[in-house]
Parts: sequence; C-alpha cells; structure tokens
Amino acid sequence: MSEEQKRIEAYQEARKKADAYYQKASPAYRAFQELAKQAFRPGALEKRVKEMIAIAISIVVKCEPCIEHHVREALQDGATEEQIVEAIEVAFEMGGGPATVQARFALEAMEHYRPRQ
Amino acid sequence: MSEEQKRIEAYQEARKKADAYYQKASPAYRAFQELAKQAFRPGALEKRVKEMIAIAISIVVKCEPCIEHHVREALQDGATEEQIVEAIEVAFEMGGGPATVQARFALEAMEHYRPRQ
Amino acid sequence: MSEEQKRIEAYQEARKKADAYYQKASPAYRAFQELAKQAFRPGALEKRVKEMIAIAISIVVKCEPCIEHHVREALQDGATEEQIVEAIEVAFEMGGGPATVQARFALEAMEHYRPRQ
Amino acid sequence: MSEEQKRIEAYQEARKKADAYYQKASPAYRAFQELAKQAFRPGALEKRVKEMIAIAISIVVKCEPCIEHHVREALQDGATEEQIVEAIEVAFEMGGGPATVQARFALEAMEHYRPRQ
Amino acid sequence: MSEEQKRIEAYQEARKKADAYYQKASPAYRAFQELAKQAFRPGALEKRVKEMIAIAISIVVKCEPCIEHHVREALQDGATEEQIVEAIEVAFEMGGGPATVQARFALEAMEHYRPRQ
Amino acid sequence: MSEEQKRIEAYQEARKKADAYYQKASPAYRAFQELAKQAFRPGALEKRVKEMIAIAISIVVKCEPCIEHHVREALQDGATEEQIVEAIEVAFEMGGGPATVQARFALEAMEHYRPRQ
Repeated sequence: MSEEQKRIEAYQEARKKADAYYQKASPAYRAFQELAKQAFRPGALEKRVKEMIAIAISIVVKCEPCIEHHVREALQDGATEEQIVEAIEVAFEMGGGPATVQARFALEAMEHYRPRQ
Repeated sequence: MSEEQKRIEAYQEARKKADAYYQKASPAYRAFQELAKQAFRPGALEKRVKEMIAIAISIVVKCEPCIEHHVREALQDGATEEQIVEAIEVAFEMGGGPATVQARFALEAMEHYRPRQ
Repeated sequence: MSEEQKRIEAYQEARKKADAYYQKASPAYRAFQELAKQAFRPGALEKRVKEMIAIAISIVVKCEPCIEHHVREALQDGATEEQIVEAIEVAFEMGGGPATVQARFALEAMEHYRPRQ
Repeated sequence: MSEEQKRIEAYQEARKKADAYYQKASPAYRAFQELAKQAFRPGALEKRVKEMIAIAISIVVKCEPCIEHHVREALQDGATEEQIVEAIEVAFEMGGGPATVQARFALEAMEHYRPRQ
Repeated sequence: MSEEQKRIEAYQEARKKADAYYQKASPAYRAFQELAKQAFRPGALEKRVKEMIAIAISIVVKCEPCIEHHVREALQDGATEEQIVEAIEVAFEMGGGPATVQARFALEAMEHYRPRQ
Repeated sequence: MSEEQKRIEAYQEARKKADAYYQKASPAYRAFQELAKQAFRPGALEKRVKEMIAIAISIVVKCEPCIEHHVREALQDGATEEQIVEAIEVAFEMGGGPATVQARFALEAMEHYRPRQ
C-alpha cells in the first residue's frame, strides 16, 4: 500500500473516531452535522455539483481530509474525473500556486476512489 | 443610489483601472488572465457552474470584488438565484460564521444584477 | 457620527437584512444559526469567555462584522475592556501584523459599545 | 506507539531544534518569543483561558503543532477537557467543516496529555 | 480628494489612534512593535527588499492597511515602481485571482506615494 | 534518511507526478505554469529575491511543498542562508506564531539543500 493510500485510510479512521467523540461531547458538533446535511442535500443543484464546489474550496483552504471526503462523494454521486478536474481548475484560478500543490493530493484521492471497470 | 450599489460600482471601476495598468506593466498578470480564461471555459462543466464554484470560494476567502464579479457572471450565464444560494450554502458549511457574513454582500450583488422582468 | 460609527451601523443593518433573506431561503443557514446558538451557550466556559474566543478568532481571520458582533456581546455579558484586550493579545501572537491592523477596528467597536456610566 | 503519538513527538522535536536555530540566528524570532510570553501572561484573564483562545485560533488557522502546544499548556494549567471542547465549539462556529477536521487532532492531543489518575 | 486617497488617510489615522491605545494597554503589542522593528532592520537584505516581501504577503493575506504601509515604506526606501510590480507578480503566482484584486489597492497606494518630480 | 528528508523527497515525487497529469488534463494548469514562469523571471528584481518573497509567502500561507521548492530555488540562485532567514523574519512579523511553526520546515529545507563545501 502506497504512502498516499495509507494517508487516505488514516484520514478515514481519524474522522470516524472524532465523529464518535464530538457527537457525544458537543452539541455544536451535532448542529454542524445538520448544517453539513442541509448544505449537500440535492436541490436546485445536484449533490455532485455541491461536492465539486466543496472540492474546490477544500483545495483553496488547504484541507486534505476535506479533499479526500468530497472527492469520494463526488465520484460516488457520478461526477466524472473530467468534471472534477474542471472544478479544480477554478481552484487554480482562485488559489494560485498553493492550489496546484493541493491538487496533487486531489489526484491521489481520484486514483484511490476512481470506479474500477 | 444605496451604499451597496456604490460599492459595486467602485469595484467595477477599480478593476477596469487596474486591468489597464497591470496588463501593460506585468507579463505575469497577462498570464493570469489566460489562466482565468481557461478556468472558466465551458467544458465538462457549464460555465455557470464554474462561476458558482467561484462564488463559493470567494465567500470563503473573503474577497468581495470576486463575489461581485462571479455573481454577475453566474446570473448572466443563466444561473438562478436559488442555485446561487445553494452554492453559498456549501460555503456556509466550509466557512462557518465568516462565510455567512460574506453572504451578506453576495445578496447585495444578487439584487444588483438580478434580471429585471 | 464618525465614519467608524457609520460602519458599525452599516454592519448591523446588513446582518439584519441578510438574516431575514437566508433564514427564509436557506435550510443550511437555519442549521448554522443553531450551531451558533450551541457554540455560545453558557456551559463549562461562561458565555463571555466564548465571546472573547470569537473576538480573537475574528481578528485573526479578518472579519470586521464578526469583531463588531462579538465585542458587543462580550461587553453585554460583562467582559471588561481589560479582558478583551488580553484576548486580542493572543490574536497578536497568533496573527502578527495583520492582527494588529484588525485590532484597530476592535478598538472602535469597544468604544462604540463601552458601557456608559 | 500510535501514529498520532509519533506525530506529537515529532512536533516537539522540530520545535526544540528550530527554537535553538532561530534564537541564535534571528533577532525577530527573539522578539517574537517576548511577544508570546506577554500574550500568555496571567492577567485579567487566566493563562488557561488564553491557552484555550489559542487552541480555538489554531484550529481555525489549521496549525497542528500550535494545537499540540496549546492543548498541552491548557491541560497543564488546569483547563478541563470539557472546557477545551467548548473552546473548540467556538472554532466550529467560526471555521465550519475544516475546523471539525482540525478538531480530530485536538482530540489526539487531549488524549496524549490528559492527566492520568 | 478621491475615495482611494480618503481610504489611505483613514488607514493612517486608524493606525495612529490604535498605536497610542495598544502601546499603553498592551505589553504584547509593545513586544510586537519590537518584532516589527527587528524584522525590517537593514541586514543581509536591504530594508526596501524586506518591504517588498511585506507588500507581497499583504496582498496574499488581503490586508489593505498593510499594503498601504509597506508600499509607502518601500517607495521611501528607494524601491522603484517596476520593482514593486515584480514583487506583486510573485503574489499573483502565490495568490491567484484574489491577489489580483488586492493589487488594485496596491496601485492606488503606489500612485498616492509615488515620488513627485 | 531522516523523516524530514523523506518528506522533502515525497514532495518532489508528488510534484512530478501531478505535473505530468495536470499538464495533460488541464489547460488552466498549463496557463498557471506560464504565470509561474513569468512571475519568477529575472527583471528589476533578481530571481533569487523573487524566490525569497515566495518563501515568505509560503510560510505565511502554510504551504510546505511551496517552502521546499522555493528554498531550493533560492539557494540554487545564490541566496545565502542569512538572507533567507531575514526573509523568514518578515514572515514572522506578518504571520505570528504559525509562521514560526512553518519556519521549522524551512530550516529542514535549508539543511537539505545547503550547498556542500
């Protein structure tokens, strides 16, 4: 298993563990989860479009576990790799060089979650 | 003319003036303009979707003139206010309270550029 | 009325207007409001301490309307100006020069909301 | 030793090494250390409250070694885990999803430095 | 007097007022001032180079009063407009679109402080 | 090989891989590369000065692979370690504590790429 795959799995485990902790310990965290649910509900925009918006933001704000999560969701919701790359291109325009750095990890996440034929 | 409308017009004038200056003075600026053109070209995602991605990023990174620009473009490209609000909702999830603050100006921009019937 | 006082009032009006709009238009915004309510509930930390945490964050992330709001709340909850300045000092350490710039507006907000004797 | 514990120790070693280097090489660094000392001095706010302000800022600005340092200090100064979680909740409100991601590492730091009975 | 010139003067007044307040009220602020003095001392790099580094950072972190201050200092220390533009170009690369937005105000500051012949 | 050296090599590999991918898949990425080329061209400022500007920005925006890249370039272009440290000091002033944290990795990069005698 490559370093990148290990990192992806480490992010998933950390999320699971912290989810359990903060759901119990924090009413604000529970409210955040409702916010997340509402923000990504299918509506006038499809969920996969919302996930691609989140990918682009994640890249600009440099949140790798966010990239991992939203790339996975976008692919599961039927976004194509070509579409995700175009969302990332908007992040290039809005974030410059550091966005191209974060796009390296987005590539790893796409490879990890890419649907197998 | 309200304060907000004045601000919107001030942003447009500042952009026009600086565009002229940096296009002449800066090769890197000219390259940036090509980057911007490529990032928003219609492709696997429609241009209006890319503009909504840019709105959401603009809100999270707190760039008011960016909000003004991309709201205008999104509306011109046929995005509905309902769709733009849903893009903004992703920014709420990714940016918390400060994103809700920036969404105030996004509302002003939507009102300013909203198509008249 | 000074420029700063005008700005403070403009922030309040913008909040009021946008609140009304997004409460109606956005389920994610309504969920955010619940998050905000939970985050500032009195608990193991007093509400005024939480407001001072929010002041310091607002300074570091450069959100003036957030500064205005949380300075007002902190003073109303009984925080002293001396305590607020000490919260701002942590922002100096964590945010450097740009934090000292934002602290200028925090001072205006403190003067605006300072309890009269 | 878990991955997280290794990371915490790596942060401590990196701090120690760089401290020695920059203290010698950089007058600005030495001035920064005085700033840090002043920012966290006990005053109108207790030191542990200042450490919790720093934890919340660290989460919002995504600085893991900062989280590690200030969680350790807060616990040593007598802050309870419940209080730290409430400081983190303010970070959720001010930082949205990426703050919940950083809170995962804050949890690791709390577990690492949690006083043993 | 144009809007931009008014803004520049407002920034100067706000700095002066807050300087007086925080110098008196905050030991951490006084330590920050020593940090600032050390960071910009002439050394292996000329002061004007350090000011241009600060201009570029100010643009990327979106601090207008910082831009105003460091453009003034750089010009006073003998930096040419061509050099400042090249420093800004690095900010374009590192900051993307929002950096080009901040460069608009940098242009205003350059015009304001440009040496008259 | 130390952990830090491994990290430096991992950053180089990730860059190489992603470069190949995005150069092929993304016209916006290719435009970004032209922007990068223009931003660092020798001009009124020497290339090594531009690299030091980029180091300081990288530290403030917390982009480790950017630090690695620009420290390497600066040293290759003849910048001295003393000069780089002074650029980093401006980052301390503009970025506070989190900048001092990023400066730890800058030190590792300097050691890694330091010219051998």
